[in-house]
Amino acid sequence: MARLQNDVFLRALRREPTPYTPIWLMRQAGRYLPEYNATRARAGSFLALCKSPAAATEVTLQPLARYRLDAAILFSDILTVPDAMGLGLRFAEGEGPRFERTTADEASIARLAAPDPNVELAYVMDAVREIRRALAGRVPLIGFAGSPFTLACYMVEGGGSADFRTVKRLLYARPDLAHRLLAVNARAVADYLNAQVAAGAQAVMLFDTWGGTLAHDAYLEFSLAYVRRVLASLAPAPDGTRVPSIVFTKGGGPWLEAIAASGCDAVGLDWTASLAAARRRVGDRVALQGNLDPLVLLAAPDVVHREAERVLADYGSGPGHVFNLGHGIVPQTPPEHVAALVETVRAASPRYHRDPGA
Amino acid sequence: MARLQNDVFLRALRREPTPYTPIWLMRQAGRYLPEYNATRARAGSFLALCKSPAAATEVTLQPLARYRLDAAILFSDILTVPDAMGLGLRFAEGEGPRFERTTADEASIARLAAPDPNVELAYVMDAVREIRRALAGRVPLIGFAGSPFTLACYMVEGGGSADFRTVKRLLYARPDLAHRLLAVNARAVADYLNAQVAAGAQAVMLFDTWGGTLAHDAYLEFSLAYVRRVLASLAPAPDGTRVPSIVFTKGGGPWLEAIAASGCDAVGLDWTASLAAARRRVGDRVALQGNLDPLVLLAAPDVVHREAERVLADYGSGPGHVFNLGHGIVPQTPPEHVAALVETVRAASPRYHRDPGA
Repeated sequence: MARLQNDVFLRALRREPTPYTPIWLMRQAGRYLPEYNATRARAGSFLALCKSPAAATEVTLQPLARYRLDAAILFSDILTVPDAMGLGLRFAEGEGPRFERTTADEASIARLAAPDPNVELAYVMDAVREIRRALAGRVPLIGFAGSPFTLACYMVEGGGSADFRTVKRLLYARPDLAHRLLAVNARAVADYLNAQVAAGAQAVMLFDTWGGTLAHDAYLEFSLAYVRRVLASLAPAPDGTRVPSIVFTKGGGPWLEAIAASGCDAVGLDWTASLAAARRRVGDRVALQGNLDPLVLLAAPDVVHREAERVLADYGSGPGHVFNLGHGIVPQTPPEHVAALVETVRAASPRYHRDPGA
Repeated sequence: MARLQNDVFLRALRREPTPYTPIWLMRQAGRYLPEYNATRARAGSFLALCKSPAAATEVTLQPLARYRLDAAILFSDILTVPDAMGLGLRFAEGEGPRFERTTADEASIARLAAPDPNVELAYVMDAVREIRRALAGRVPLIGFAGSPFTLACYMVEGGGSADFRTVKRLLYARPDLAHRLLAVNARAVADYLNAQVAAGAQAVMLFDTWGGTLAHDAYLEFSLAYVRRVLASLAPAPDGTRVPSIVFTKGGGPWLEAIAASGCDAVGLDWTASLAAARRRVGDRVALQGNLDPLVLLAAPDVVHREAERVLADYGSGPGHVFNLGHGIVPQTPPEHVAALVETVRAASPRYHRDPGA
């Protein structure tokens, strides 16, 4: 493997000093980029894009050709894991994901087993290896997975939902079944992330997209407990070093301290959180990632500039900040506004990293 | 007006001692009740129901005939206010609300004016008076309105939205226009609530359904500032007493201290918040209302019982708790589960209110 030339992102995750605030963006490879849409059209569908290591490599690298980003993230989808469990993932055009089979009763949950990521998800590991080769050490590669609870949401509902009422009814009415499902998911997610790391991922991120829809106690019992289990199962990199991990929970503000104590290295925050307030709450236990409102990117470049400066100032001085959006880039985003954001962060952030003794 | 026989709810809002924890439920008059569906079918549509004082009175009282609730809430919709501004509200069957005209540019915002609630919204004031007569002092009547920002969301988008990107673009790109729109809304909402109080509402509630989708600073500037302005404009009741106010912000956890300092008497919390943690944060400045996950009501009565007990224990001993859901009752709720909830709270809550010196 080529030597890593830019480790600013990895150092920020470890809360080590960096010359500037590193930046990458959730969904940085995506529909706002014309070159992404061209590759996707050639691949035939979103799922075909995920399942082709060559195409996934191509789109993973596209934003790096345009912007001075400090990390790449594997192009894939969190639902590849339940798909590999045999649930039959489909993306209907213009709709969200749907599973052919749901996992909502005793019999279907009893049948579930964690897939072998090097068999059923070999195409992802091939993509990780191919992306690492294509990156040639320019920036680190982030691997990722959905959280056990977030995967369970889709598995039980059979797709997205406005209020996740079927999975919530399962949690409340049959906690025993819910725990069995979540335990399988935690095993599957840990195996999947460890396989990504073995294939070359240099950091990992858990997306708990729907944990924040749970009631206070239910979140701790059904989501965070399994996030913790996954984190505790993470193996070191092939060279023996610890692989830093990021946990992103949309709407996770109420549980910030608990998430910070889950065993992760960094907490991703959505745009509703104040980074300053979050920093006061977690102290120096973890790095923080975020958290510009992705819809700021719809406004003019001078607004993007002003709001990005505000996020940097909100975090303040010192190490441990990874700049990101508070959620994924929306497809309507003009690509030149993303350029304005990346350049603003690169130009404006060094003053938050000057050694006060220098 | 008949003398009020049950003031437990009003006393809890003022943090005065009560013999038990009062309970009412957001959307307690609604589609989960067969008698509501019958009245609505007779009225012809949801909007016709809102605009008929007799039908609105009928459905407002329906849940009180079934359950020992401690408050009634005016049956209406937050969008009657922009409708009265001339935007043309429509509810298509099976869809959400739509406005015929949006309010997204300089010209349409300049044209906006606060309606006279006793003229354009006279049907609401008629309903308030008729409900007060029909209640005959059994329990207090809550009046309500949408927050200035939440109304702006619908006015700018023309209806609901997954991410409110049009209104957010307006806030970020043209804050001057957004502030003009919000100032008109704040005037309209204050006038509307004051007219409800003059007509007989004994408490008022502001629903900030979408404020919680804003970024940290944007929430303070575009939502809470106008909630504060409305609260500061509230007049006393016809008898000169202060009318207690409740502010409910879905996803408002990050700003709890600021909301508690806005001038309201109580803060409504959604189900993601821990009441114990919220109580530690706000001290004795305000009462707290909430916050059972409404989807608990889809599970069996014994689960409803267990989870309601958990909410009571989470708040703990002492005055200042109004039991409620963390959001509205969903239409799929079995009415007998609501009975289980109301009876549990009535039976289990007195032990949290015993005078420790007795």
